Amino acid sequence: MLYLIGLGLHSLDDLSLGGLKALKESDKVFVESYTSFHTLDLKELEQLCGKEVVALERAGVEEDLVKNLIEPAKTETVSLLVFGDPLVATTHASIITEARKAGVDVHVIHASSIVSAVGECGLQVYKFGRVATLNLPQEGYAPTSAYDLIKSNKDAGLHSLILLDVKSEEGKYMTVAEGVKELLRLEGEKRGGLFSHETMLVACARLGAQDSVIRYARAGDLLTADFGGPPHALILPGKLHFTEEEFLENLK
Amino acid sequence: MLYLIGLGLHSLDDLSLGGLKALKESDKVFVESYTSFHTLDLKELEQLCGKEVVALERAGVEEDLVKNLIEPAKTETVSLLVFGDPLVATTHASIITEARKAGVDVHVIHASSIVSAVGECGLQVYKFGRVATLNLPQEGYAPTSAYDLIKSNKDAGLHSLILLDVKSEEGKYMTVAEGVKELLRLEGEKRGGLFSHETMLVACARLGAQDSVIRYARAGDLLTADFGGPPHALILPGKLHFTEEEFLENLK
Repeated sequence: MLYLIGLGLHSLDDLSLGGLKALKESDKVFVESYTSFHTLDLKELEQLCGKEVVALERAGVEEDLVKNLIEPAKTETVSLLVFGDPLVATTHASIITEARKAGVDVHVIHASSIVSAVGECGLQVYKFGRVATLNLPQEGYAPTSAYDLIKSNKDAGLHSLILLDVKSEEGKYMTVAEGVKELLRLEGEKRGGLFSHETMLVACARLGAQDSVIRYARAGDLLTADFGGPPHALILPGKLHFTEEEFLENLK
Repeated sequence: MLYLIGLGLHSLDDLSLGGLKALKESDKVFVESYTSFHTLDLKELEQLCGKEVVALERAGVEEDLVKNLIEPAKTETVSLLVFGDPLVATTHASIITEARKAGVDVHVIHASSIVSAVGECGLQVYKFGRVATLNLPQEGYAPTSAYDLIKSNKDAGLHSLILLDVKSEEGKYMTVAEGVKELLRLEGEKRGGLFSHETMLVACARLGAQDSVIRYARAGDLLTADFGGPPHALILPGKLHFTEEEFLENLK
């Protein structure tokens, strides 16, 4: 039996009571260590569940999935801890597919995710369109698909959540300032009229944590703003209801 | 100080460790009792947090917000427990606005939500468009906005999560079969080519619970299907990636 257990947004406090129960009855516990800047303390986690916890890099979860997780789960109770809600990252849905092929039962224990926590910005969660991601610049690779996606959300009056890249294995992350710079660069290339220095954006850091920061500000002002540690995200609001407007005004 | 604490998707096990800590340090604890069929046992909850928990109906949270929650939070630590993730329902964002007006500090403790848990159907969470809701039929009131919203998601290749109405105060909920019937009725009216008896839909009940049911089936077959207790939901898939298709095939 294989548990996929969400660690939630930010700290061990975001683990659910059911998640903790499952960890306590597990024979083997793994934690993925590559998709987030979750402030996880492995020692504290081990103390909490009363057993050793093995951190797996990306290859350990993806390439060695069968060896590390699925084979042992045929005879023991194995848990994989995942940041956020486990199935938001597509990798984890494929774990279920592979486990089922091998006849292994999978239980998912859900936790908090940016996809719903974004409501903390005062924008209606049901009025968000598709989620966009901006990646850290890589030589010779400058995709514009995020811009097109945000444009189609905006045309439909919907809010766009723009996640900013985190490469925790390399210790790198995209800041609010870098994200805004990239959006303005994309605007220069695509000219869809979405972004200028005057565009009002919601910028957030560490959403859901006790030290989260949420601000509603001009893109131009965000270019020099410091939001501290990761993860960061931006939101381009779509059509605003007056209660949403009122909420945003208080975040200026 | 006011805590808005998510109860998560389905049972007390979905409460986070941080949520439980906040409850233990609270002077007063309230739980909203109207937006969900969460299988909450009030006695068990009281035992868990070691104090009395007062259930509030809709009017108690909305109309008597200041008296019940905000005034006491000026001098004491007050918690309001909310089903799912607290800010997915718009009502709760307005609690923050009102509390801030009164100078009361608000902390949100997030939990699991259908918005991310829907990944359990094998569809990419980031490829969902706007969320639609179908309401239980009311005399003289038959809105078609849900259909338009699903159509615009479909046109953009996006998946549509269609929540089916739950009126827990009246003990009523819309079933998968009733939901499909309503979608076919809307199709007859709007004729956008979205739904027929042959349309493949994902139908789910109690997503995130241990006894959840998820099936991928013809609309025609869902008209007579029994999915047990609430809440129920439907998904009209948009453009499918082959890994999504593979996952859905296993849900037939």
